[in-house]
This record gives sequence, C-alpha cells and structure tokens, in this order.
Amino acid sequence: MILIKVGGGKTINWDYIAQDLSELLKKEKVIVVHGASGIRDEIAKKLNAPTKTVVSPSGISSVYTDEKALDIFLMVYAGLVNKKIVALLQKYDVNAIGLSGVDGRLWEGKRKTNLYVQEKDKTKLTTDNLTGKVEKINASLILLLVKNEYVPVLCPPAISDENEIINTDNDFAIAIMAKAFGVKKIISLFEAPGMLKNPKDEKSLISKIKKEEIENYLKFAKGRMKKKLLGAKKALDYGVETTYWGDGRIKNPLKNALQGKGTVIS
Amino acid sequence: MILIKVGGGKTINWDYIAQDLSELLKKEKVIVVHGASGIRDEIAKKLNAPTKTVVSPSGISSVYTDEKALDIFLMVYAGLVNKKIVALLQKYDVNAIGLSGVDGRLWEGKRKTNLYVQEKDKTKLTTDNLTGKVEKINASLILLLVKNEYVPVLCPPAISDENEIINTDNDFAIAIMAKAFGVKKIISLFEAPGMLKNPKDEKSLISKIKKEEIENYLKFAKGRMKKKLLGAKKALDYGVETTYWGDGRIKNPLKNALQGKGTVIS
Repeated sequence: MILIKVGGGKTINWDYIAQDLSELLKKEKVIVVHGASGIRDEIAKKLNAPTKTVVSPSGISSVYTDEKALDIFLMVYAGLVNKKIVALLQKYDVNAIGLSGVDGRLWEGKRKTNLYVQEKDKTKLTTDNLTGKVEKINASLILLLVKNEYVPVLCPPAISDENEIINTDNDFAIAIMAKAFGVKKIISLFEAPGMLKNPKDEKSLISKIKKEEIENYLKFAKGRMKKKLLGAKKALDYGVETTYWGDGRIKNPLKNALQGKGTVIS
Repeated sequence: MILIKVGGGKTINWDYIAQDLSELLKKEKVIVVHGASGIRDEIAKKLNAPTKTVVSPSGISSVYTDEKALDIFLMVYAGLVNKKIVALLQKYDVNAIGLSGVDGRLWEGKRKTNLYVQEKDKTKLTTDNLTGKVEKINASLILLLVKNEYVPVLCPPAISDENEIINTDNDFAIAIMAKAFGVKKIISLFEAPGMLKNPKDEKSLISKIKKEEIENYLKFAKGRMKKKLLGAKKALDYGVETTYWGDGRIKNPLKNALQGKGTVIS
C-alpha cells in the first residue's frame, strides 16, 4: 500500500495525478489524502472571515480554527474539493470514494483546547481553537474499502474523543495511517519540485535527505515545510522506509516522485 | 431496511432524530438521506449568488443549478451539513458515515442538459443546468457499509454517466434505492406535522393518503410538496408498502411517524 498526499495549492494538476494513479493502481493499493488550503483561503475571504495563521512559541505555524473557520473548512475540504477530486478520478476509472476524518471515526484525536500563540514578544493562551492531533484511525473501515477495490480519498477534519469536529494536520494523520498499515512508501505532492534550499529558486532542489539530517533541515525550513518535515520524520519513526516529495503541477507527478526526481527522504 | 429522509429546514432537530435512530438501529438496518436547503440558501446569499428557483411548464419547481450554484451546493450539502450530521450521530453512538452520490458512483444518472423553464406566459429553454435524475445506484457499496454496521448518511449531488457532478432530487433517488433493496418502509421528516390541507394551518393534517388518491392531492399540492408526493408515488410503484411523513422538529420524530401520527401514504 502506498499513501499519497496532495497539497491544497491551486496549481496542482489533478488530471496528471489521476492519469498516473490509474496506472499505479494496477500494481498497488493506494490511499489518497488531500488538502484544499488555496480554495479555502479564497472562500474564507469571500465570506468575510479570512484565514488566520498563528505561530506557536516553538515557531510552527498553523491555521487558527474557530467555529466560523471550521465551518468554512468543512465546506471547502469535505464538500467542494473532496467531491470534485472524486468526480475527476472517476473520469479516469479510479473508483474513488471521498471521506473526511469524521466519517466512521476515520481519524480520531483529542482536542487541544489550550493553544499558545506567539505574538511578537508575547505568548498568548487561546481556548477556542478547534484542532487536535490524530491519535487513532478506523483501520478496518479503510481496509474494507481498499479490499473492495475502492480508492479512499481522505481529508480533514477529524473527530475528537468527545465528538467535536477538529481541524488536524494531514502529515501527522498520514504518519499514523502508515504505522497502522505497515506502509513503506509515502508520496507527497505539492507546488514545488521538492524541498528547496532557497524557497524562491526552484532549481535549488535538495534531492536527498537522510533521517538523521532532518533535524538540521528543520532549522532553516519555514512555515508549512517545517510541518512536512516533522510529518516525514514521524513517518520514518513509524516504519516508513521512504517519503518521496514531488511536483504536483507537472505531467507524471507520481512516476517522477517515485523515480526520485523530487526530494527523497529515507 | 428502512430509508429515512430528513428535510433541509433549519428547525429540524437532529438530536431528537439521533435519539430515535439509536433505538431503531437495535432492530433495523437504516439508510439516512438528508437535505440542507435552509443553510444552502443562507450561504448562497452571503456569497452573492442567491438560490434561484425555476418552475417547469408542468408546474414543478426546482432549484436552478449552474456552476456557481453547484459549488455552493457541494460545500453545504456534502461538506458542512453532511459532516455535522455525522458527528452528531456519532455522539449518540450511531456509527455514521457520510457520502454524496458522487462517491463510488453511489447515485448515477443522466444530465438533463435541456431544461424548459416557465416564465409567466413564456417557456424558455436553458442549457447550463447541472441536474439530472438518479437512474442507478451502487447497491453493493451501500450493502458493504450496512452489513458492517455503518449507517450511511447520504446526500446529493449525484454523478452523471459522463462524470459530471449533477444536482438531483432526493425523493426520486430514495425511490430508486427502495427498489434496489426491496424496502417496505420509508420515513420522511420535514418542518410540518405532515401533509396539510392548508399549508398555513398545522392543524389541517391529512392523516392518510391512499395510492390512488395521490393524483388528486397533486392538483392542490404546491412547490416542494408536489415533488414529495411524486417521490412517494414512485416509491409505491417500486414496491414500497408505506411512506410515513412526520414532523422533524419534535421529540421522537421517527417513533411518531411510524405510529402514524403524521401522514401515512400507502
């Protein structure tokens, strides 16, 4: 089984992904996890509730999710984007079925009620944040679908142990799934050729990162890249052999990633 | 198996429904189908694309679904409302899993490209309407979930035979599902005690409608009620013995409906 994560940027080409996926499915079982941050930010603006990003005291940025932001999140991730991806995959004969982490308690975690936010020199405590980390998954539901030739297309949010809907980090949820299914390979596609030395220079690709080097890279990684690295590290801790990062905008995104044309973390 | 349809009005009480449902599940398999028109209309207004209703030459009203309206539809039905219902049912230990008709080609139909719309004395042809009628269902997917103790919570849109996402009529989709599974009982909950002689007088409840009387009632039924009646007729044609209409706002909505306290159509 291969886990495929696709970022939520607007220039990701799902037709290219679907083409590769229908090939890949001839020899592998696959689970797809997607984001939708690009369109989410757009809709949030239109609804006069622009996305707010906060930074933790340790420097990790995340989206601030109050009730209004969560509603928009549900609309865009589990509704608009998930179902459009499913319909597109169906066009390529990929028998996709879209689910959020809420469905059948697919992704379950604890709500992190207290969130410390760094604002310049001050650390502020917030308590209305509807987020949490996935701690367990409904493995039997995923296996039921995969064994019956469906391709699960998953997205956040997750559900808390107290039945609240909570926003959650995709990379972390993927690491937990990798552990549950003994997955050896993860592919992660986004709007860049891979990890870049200089985020503004697409030619500054880092081709290989060894597990023991991740700590070093964490020091100069920024924003989302930091989260991706932490997720990749977690996945390696959980028995994954290789995480392939690749470009989700170009033709043959999955093939290229698996051939090591992006960043290979192992 | 019982099919339960719940309307999309804002005063529907899902806690009451969930309480009854967790009882009902002790002796019956259940599929839930829900609407979300109330919240959809609200969000559509906020996004400056208010819901447009059109009337066919035969007097049946429906929502006009162009691309923008479909996006909003996806957001509210398959995203916001479907997942909130799933999380609420989970709270009552109902192992709900939310799916749209697009997922795994659950509801498939033909897109009705040409739609005739009555505007005062004129009949106008429109061709950008993304709607269609469900003609076949993925019965094996539903059975797979039901046999494994999940409660499918379904909503439109559906998928066309050419992989377009299409808005569709819930009542008709339910009739098709009833036929596929040999269902004998359908419960339909909405924001009224049942079919009313006078829509403005909740005490004017019609307790019983026989199949052969439906034609008569169709003459004076208005708007959505007309569609509901047509759906109920279709279901009876397809072998359903009884459709129970009931109040989705009050305590014990399912029990009351099954006890014939709303409108019983058989």
